[in-house]
Amino acid sequence: MPELPELNPVIHGKLRLALLSLLSAVEEAEFTWLRAKTGSTDGNLGAQLLKLEEAGYVTIEKKFVLRKPQTLYRMTEAGRRALTDYVVALKQLLGGAIGD
Amino acid sequence: MPELPELNPVIHGKLRLALLSLLSAVEEAEFTWLRAKTGSTDGNLGAQLLKLEEAGYVTIEKKFVLRKPQTLYRMTEAGRRALTDYVVALKQLLGGAIGD
Repeated sequence: MPELPELNPVIHGKLRLALLSLLSAVEEAEFTWLRAKTGSTDGNLGAQLLKLEEAGYVTIEKKFVLRKPQTLYRMTEAGRRALTDYVVALKQLLGGAIGD
Repeated sequence: MPELPELNPVIHGKLRLALLSLLSAVEEAEFTWLRAKTGSTDGNLGAQLLKLEEAGYVTIEKKFVLRKPQTLYRMTEAGRRALTDYVVALKQLLGGAIGD
Protein backbone atom coordinates (compact mmCIF):
# COMPACT_ATOMS: atom_id res chain seq x y z
CA MET A 1 0.00 0.00 0.00
CA PRO A 2 2.14 2.90 -1.24
CA GLU A 3 1.73 6.20 0.58
CA LEU A 4 3.84 8.26 -1.79
CA PRO A 5 2.42 10.49 -4.52
CA GLU A 6 2.65 9.02 -8.02
CA LEU A 7 4.86 10.80 -10.53
CA ASN A 8 3.34 10.66 -14.02
CA PRO A 9 5.88 8.54 -15.95
CA VAL A 10 5.16 10.32 -19.25
CA ILE A 11 6.19 13.60 -17.63
CA HIS A 12 9.01 12.26 -15.44
CA GLY A 13 11.20 11.14 -18.35
CA LYS A 14 14.18 13.50 -18.33
CA LEU A 15 13.98 14.73 -21.91
CA ARG A 16 10.17 14.89 -21.90
CA LEU A 17 10.26 16.91 -18.71
CA ALA A 18 12.71 19.32 -20.30
CA LEU A 19 10.54 19.58 -23.42
CA LEU A 20 7.38 20.30 -21.46
CA SER A 21 9.21 22.91 -19.39
CA LEU A 22 10.42 24.60 -22.56
CA LEU A 23 7.02 24.41 -24.25
CA SER A 24 5.21 25.69 -21.17
CA ALA A 25 7.05 29.00 -21.53
CA VAL A 26 6.35 29.68 -25.22
CA GLU A 27 3.37 29.88 -27.56
CA GLU A 28 4.92 27.36 -29.96
CA ALA A 29 8.37 26.06 -30.79
CA GLU A 30 10.21 24.67 -33.79
CA PHE A 31 11.90 21.28 -33.77
CA THR A 32 15.29 22.89 -34.36
CA TRP A 33 14.88 25.23 -31.38
CA LEU A 34 13.91 22.36 -29.09
CA ARG A 35 16.90 20.39 -30.36
CA ALA A 36 19.29 23.27 -29.66
CA LYS A 37 17.86 23.85 -26.18
CA THR A 38 17.97 20.22 -25.12
CA GLY A 39 21.12 19.17 -26.96
CA SER A 40 19.27 16.01 -27.99
CA THR A 41 19.69 13.94 -31.12
CA ASP A 42 17.03 14.13 -33.86
CA GLY A 43 15.99 10.54 -33.24
CA ASN A 44 15.49 10.74 -29.51
CA LEU A 45 13.89 14.17 -29.71
CA GLY A 46 11.39 12.99 -32.33
CA ALA A 47 10.56 9.86 -30.31
CA GLN A 48 9.92 11.78 -27.09
CA LEU A 49 7.85 14.45 -28.82
CA LEU A 50 5.77 11.68 -30.39
CA LYS A 51 5.15 10.17 -26.96
CA LEU A 52 4.04 13.57 -25.70
CA GLU A 53 1.71 13.91 -28.69
CA GLU A 54 0.29 10.42 -28.10
CA ALA A 55 -0.41 11.38 -24.49
CA GLY A 56 -2.28 14.45 -25.74
CA TYR A 57 0.17 16.84 -24.08
CA VAL A 58 1.61 18.35 -27.26
CA THR A 59 0.27 19.07 -30.75
CA ILE A 60 2.44 18.81 -33.84
CA GLU A 61 1.87 21.01 -36.87
CA LYS A 62 3.81 20.62 -40.07
CA LYS A 63 3.85 23.45 -42.58
CA PHE A 64 5.92 24.99 -45.32
CA VAL A 65 7.49 28.41 -44.89
CA LEU A 66 9.10 29.74 -48.07
CA ARG A 67 8.97 26.17 -49.41
CA LYS A 68 10.96 24.87 -46.43
CA PRO A 69 9.25 22.34 -44.15
CA GLN A 70 8.78 23.49 -40.60
CA THR A 71 7.46 21.49 -37.64
CA LEU A 72 5.83 23.39 -34.84
CA TYR A 73 5.12 22.03 -31.36
CA ARG A 74 2.63 23.44 -28.95
CA MET A 75 1.62 22.41 -25.45
CA THR A 76 -2.05 21.52 -24.96
CA GLU A 77 -4.28 22.39 -22.02
CA ALA A 78 -4.10 18.73 -20.95
CA GLY A 79 -0.30 18.99 -21.05
CA ARG A 80 -0.39 22.06 -18.84
CA ARG A 81 -2.68 20.35 -16.34
CA ALA A 82 -0.51 17.21 -16.33
CA LEU A 83 2.64 19.25 -15.73
CA THR A 84 0.94 21.13 -12.88
CA ASP A 85 -0.21 17.85 -11.33
CA TYR A 86 3.31 16.48 -11.70
CA VAL A 87 4.81 19.48 -9.92
CA VAL A 88 2.28 19.12 -7.09
CA ALA A 89 3.14 15.41 -6.70
CA LEU A 90 6.85 16.18 -6.85
CA LYS A 91 6.53 18.81 -4.15
CA GLN A 92 4.63 16.35 -1.95
CA LEU A 93 7.25 13.69 -2.60
CA LEU A 94 10.21 15.95 -1.91
CA GLY A 95 8.52 17.66 1.00
CA GLY A 96 10.65 20.26 2.70
CA ALA A 97 13.59 19.79 0.34
CA ILE A 98 11.90 21.75 -2.43
CA GLY A 99 10.36 24.50 -0.36
CA ASP A 100 13.35 26.71 0.38
CA MET B 1 25.05 22.63 -26.82
CA PRO B 2 22.45 22.01 -24.14
CA GLU B 3 21.37 24.99 -22.08
CA LEU B 4 19.24 23.07 -19.63
CA PRO B 5 20.36 22.02 -16.15
CA GLU B 6 21.38 18.37 -15.84
CA LEU B 7 19.25 16.16 -13.62
CA ASN B 8 21.44 13.60 -11.81
CA PRO B 9 20.20 10.28 -13.28
CA VAL B 10 20.94 8.37 -10.07
CA ILE B 11 18.57 10.67 -8.20
CA HIS B 12 15.96 11.13 -10.94
CA GLY B 13 14.89 7.46 -11.02
CA LYS B 14 11.37 7.41 -9.60
CA LEU B 15 11.88 4.86 -6.84
CA ARG B 16 15.34 6.16 -5.93
CA LEU B 17 13.96 9.68 -5.67
CA ALA B 18 11.22 8.43 -3.35
CA LEU B 19 13.77 6.54 -1.24
CA LEU B 20 16.04 9.55 -0.87
CA SER B 21 13.07 11.74 0.05
CA LEU B 22 12.07 9.25 2.73
CA LEU B 23 15.60 8.84 4.04
CA SER B 24 16.23 12.58 4.10
CA ALA B 25 13.52 12.94 6.75
CA VAL B 26 14.69 10.24 9.16
CA GLU B 27 17.87 9.27 11.01
CA GLU B 28 17.75 5.72 9.65
CA ALA B 29 15.17 3.37 8.18
CA GLU B 30 14.53 -0.34 7.99
CA PHE B 31 14.08 -2.19 4.72
CA THR B 32 10.54 -3.19 5.69
CA TRP B 33 9.54 0.41 6.43
CA LEU B 34 10.91 1.60 3.08
CA ARG B 35 9.06 -1.23 1.35
CA ALA B 36 5.77 -0.31 3.04
CA LYS B 37 6.19 3.38 2.23
CA THR B 38 7.07 2.89 -1.42
CA GLY B 39 4.88 -0.13 -2.12
CA SER B 40 7.83 -1.62 -4.01
CA THR B 41 8.77 -5.27 -4.42
CA ASP B 42 11.72 -6.69 -2.46
CA GLY B 43 13.74 -7.20 -5.64
CA ASN B 44 13.34 -3.72 -7.07
CA LEU B 45 13.75 -2.05 -3.71
CA GLY B 46 16.98 -3.96 -3.01
CA ALA B 47 18.35 -3.14 -6.47
CA GLN B 48 17.66 0.60 -6.17
CA LEU B 49 19.05 0.78 -2.63
CA LEU B 50 22.19 -0.94 -3.88
CA LYS B 51 22.55 1.67 -6.64
CA LEU B 52 22.22 4.40 -4.05
CA GLU B 53 24.85 2.71 -1.91
CA GLU B 54 27.20 2.34 -4.90
CA ALA B 55 26.80 6.06 -5.58
CA GLY B 56 27.75 6.78 -1.98
CA TYR B 57 24.38 8.32 -1.17
CA VAL B 58 23.21 5.68 1.29
CA THR B 59 24.91 3.38 3.80
CA ILE B 60 23.63 -0.10 4.58
CA GLU B 61 24.06 -1.68 8.00
CA LYS B 62 23.07 -5.25 8.72
CA LYS B 63 22.62 -6.36 12.30
CA PHE B 64 20.76 -8.82 14.45
CA VAL B 65 18.11 -7.67 16.87
CA LEU B 66 16.82 -10.45 19.15
CA ARG B 67 18.38 -12.92 16.69
CA LYS B 68 16.36 -11.46 13.80
CA PRO B 69 18.30 -9.91 10.93
CA GLN B 70 17.62 -6.23 10.41
CA THR B 71 18.89 -4.01 7.61
CA LEU B 72 19.21 -0.32 8.28
CA TYR B 73 19.59 2.40 5.66
CA ARG B 74 20.92 5.84 6.26
CA MET B 75 21.48 8.80 3.97
CA THR B 76 25.04 10.10 3.72
CA GLU B 77 26.22 13.71 3.56
CA ALA B 78 27.05 13.15 -0.11
CA GLY B 79 23.48 11.93 -0.61
CA ARG B 80 22.11 15.04 1.01
CA ARG B 81 24.26 17.29 -1.16
CA ALA B 82 23.29 15.37 -4.30
CA LEU B 83 19.59 15.66 -3.47
CA THR B 84 19.95 19.38 -2.83
CA ASP B 85 21.78 19.85 -6.14
CA TYR B 86 19.07 17.85 -7.86
CA VAL B 87 16.33 20.05 -6.41
CA VAL B 88 18.19 23.18 -7.52
CA ALA B 89 18.54 21.80 -11.07
CA LEU B 90 14.89 20.75 -11.09
CA LYS B 91 13.78 24.20 -10.03
CA GLN B 92 15.88 25.77 -12.76
CA LEU B 93 14.47 23.33 -15.29
CA LEU B 94 10.86 23.81 -14.28
CA GLY B 95 11.23 27.54 -13.81
CA GLY B 96 8.05 29.29 -12.81
CA ALA B 97 5.99 26.10 -12.70
CA ILE B 98 7.49 25.04 -9.38
CA GLY B 99 7.53 28.40 -7.67
CA ASP B 100 3.88 28.84 -6.76
